Amino acid sequence: MSEAPISTLEAARARSAQVEEQIAKDPSQFRVLTGERPTGSLHIGHYFGTIANRVRLQTAGVETILILADYQVITDRDVMGDLRGTVREIMLDYLASGIDPEKTTIFTHSAVPALNQLMLPFLSLVSVSELERNPTVKAETAATGGRAMSGLMLTYPVHQAADILFCHGNLVPVGQDQLPHLEMTRTIARRFNQRFAGGEQYFREPEALLAPTPTILGTDGTKMSKSRGNTLMLSATADETAKWVKRAKTDAERTITYDPEGRPEVANLLGLLSLTTGEAPEVAAARIGDGGAGTLKREVTEALVEYLRPIRERRAELAAHGDDVLEMLARGNERANELADATLADVRRLMGTTY
Amino acid sequence: MSEAPISTLEAARARSAQVEEQIAKDPSQFRVLTGERPTGSLHIGHYFGTIANRVRLQTAGVETILILADYQVITDRDVMGDLRGTVREIMLDYLASGIDPEKTTIFTHSAVPALNQLMLPFLSLVSVSELERNPTVKAETAATGGRAMSGLMLTYPVHQAADILFCHGNLVPVGQDQLPHLEMTRTIARRFNQRFAGGEQYFREPEALLAPTPTILGTDGTKMSKSRGNTLMLSATADETAKWVKRAKTDAERTITYDPEGRPEVANLLGLLSLTTGEAPEVAAARIGDGGAGTLKREVTEALVEYLRPIRERRAELAAHGDDVLEMLARGNERANELADATLADVRRLMGTTY
Repeated sequence: MSEAPISTLEAARARSAQVEEQIAKDPSQFRVLTGERPTGSLHIGHYFGTIANRVRLQTAGVETILILADYQVITDRDVMGDLRGTVREIMLDYLASGIDPEKTTIFTHSAVPALNQLMLPFLSLVSVSELERNPTVKAETAATGGRAMSGLMLTYPVHQAADILFCHGNLVPVGQDQLPHLEMTRTIARRFNQRFAGGEQYFREPEALLAPTPTILGTDGTKMSKSRGNTLMLSATADETAKWVKRAKTDAERTITYDPEGRPEVANLLGLLSLTTGEAPEVAAARIGDGGAGTLKREVTEALVEYLRPIRERRAELAAHGDDVLEMLARGNERANELADATLADVRRLMGTTY
Repeated sequence: MSEAPISTLEAARARSAQVEEQIAKDPSQFRVLTGERPTGSLHIGHYFGTIANRVRLQTAGVETILILADYQVITDRDVMGDLRGTVREIMLDYLASGIDPEKTTIFTHSAVPALNQLMLPFLSLVSVSELERNPTVKAETAATGGRAMSGLMLTYPVHQAADILFCHGNLVPVGQDQLPHLEMTRTIARRFNQRFAGGEQYFREPEALLAPTPTILGTDGTKMSKSRGNTLMLSATADETAKWVKRAKTDAERTITYDPEGRPEVANLLGLLSLTTGEAPEVAAARIGDGGAGTLKREVTEALVEYLRPIRERRAELAAHGDDVLEMLARGNERANELADATLADVRRLMGTTY
């Protein structure tokens, strides 16, 4: 993972604060592009890490385009798995979490040919060495543990540029370690304008929105991830939630204190308590104090169960309605196709490939 | 340019002879995919090298899909040029040469999003090192003289696979130095079948058809190429033809003999005479003998002018009808879209990306 230099990070923080102010004043000037690979249904790490922020932006009135990057599932693996099932589960997670398909366009890569076609002109705008140096590609390659890199992985940042630019997205929520990931999209937008649009600002360079994205640790104290078996799913029952908290690693110290550096596992539970109750973690720590891990875990369990209850209930209700969520996805795909077709028509006109 | 080993070449020749026999018996079992980059209108090198062979296959009853690879224009250059104009000129060249849009589907890359979308799954089936080792990429890179290789150039063979497989083309006419160029398409077809079609032969591996593709030399004795300014355009007038032959390099030997290795320029003129009159070059050489280059050039001029006359006349007639040729292209694009949409629907079903 390549981290941005401090100065860049400071500038990005300042700019993000500015953007948040602008959103509060006039959300209509922004269009957010965000999404994920549909590799499994969502856990609370996804929820607190990104979904909650998307709901916040949606509530603030910012139009959001949410991509389920189905082709990206096979950047680093051979099989797609039960994609239809996974996509349905994620749709349920989204809707239960408060994503409103009337306000947020949810779509899948594979359903939008005109978006994918943008890969072709965009690939002409970057060199192979730029692709090889790209931090996204480097990070993803490191994560695959020496597996031969596929052509799809190498060109992933170009596909990402197509995701963002097809809908003229101008704001992309990122965590601070993902700050460099937008650079290729910005480069492609700039070069396209210079080379094919006679310098006209046809594509705007999107900006990163540094999002409040707490990292939630799993039961083993590492980042929550399905492959580690340490997750608490968003659909978890009260029982499953209690079991997950019980299994969560703490440490040998009796008294509860808030020390994210020195006591990450305890801080993680205090963080969850704070996210679900609104109480600051330091305050909760002082209050629990000698109550120790037992008290902390009891409080976290109660708070999490309560917090997740409406999500779980909405989810069960939605799930009972069969394929309704896939119909919502179909409408999102239709809207994404409209956006992509319009952009591709512009791009063809600008490049002179209209006959 | 990487050349196939002799044994491969022999096998390919034998297989091509077999295919020609099968074509004569039942042309309906083949679909040819061929085409070119629209970088300029066509010269007699294109005509005798590839167009005449396409007309021959069309006349034999083989369905042909002819691609104008407009996105490939920018694999090795920044600007598209007047593509609309160039494409119109090439359409005129095609139709004047006998390509019949009722029998041959002519289309442009940029008009067929579903074809371009195939890039995404196909890119997942090849590794970056396979792309870097590809002879097509190596040859193209060498031709660009050290210019940084673009992402579009590196992934060119994958795009080519999409060209061939989107329409289930199973026969690709190639010159003998292009034999290895089909390998990536064959690999992608095979891997797609294994990985996504459960071993079903959804995509057939296309075969190379070693075509009778004489290389026509320009006035300077090197391969005919627009960038060398040594071409005779297919639309050339009688006057332009005479001038071109007059400028054509010969050698110091007085007597005309047919010796392609030792006397390539004279052999080139004898070859042109043969292509336009049907007389074998050896026979023509013996007949002309001491008549020397003067006689040879006079005969070539007359024969070429006569041969090109109907093409030139049809071309002028077609050109007078304004945008008719672009309407023909629009119909070809429509047909290509139908083929591509059907294939993409299959591919989505096989990959499980239908929701």
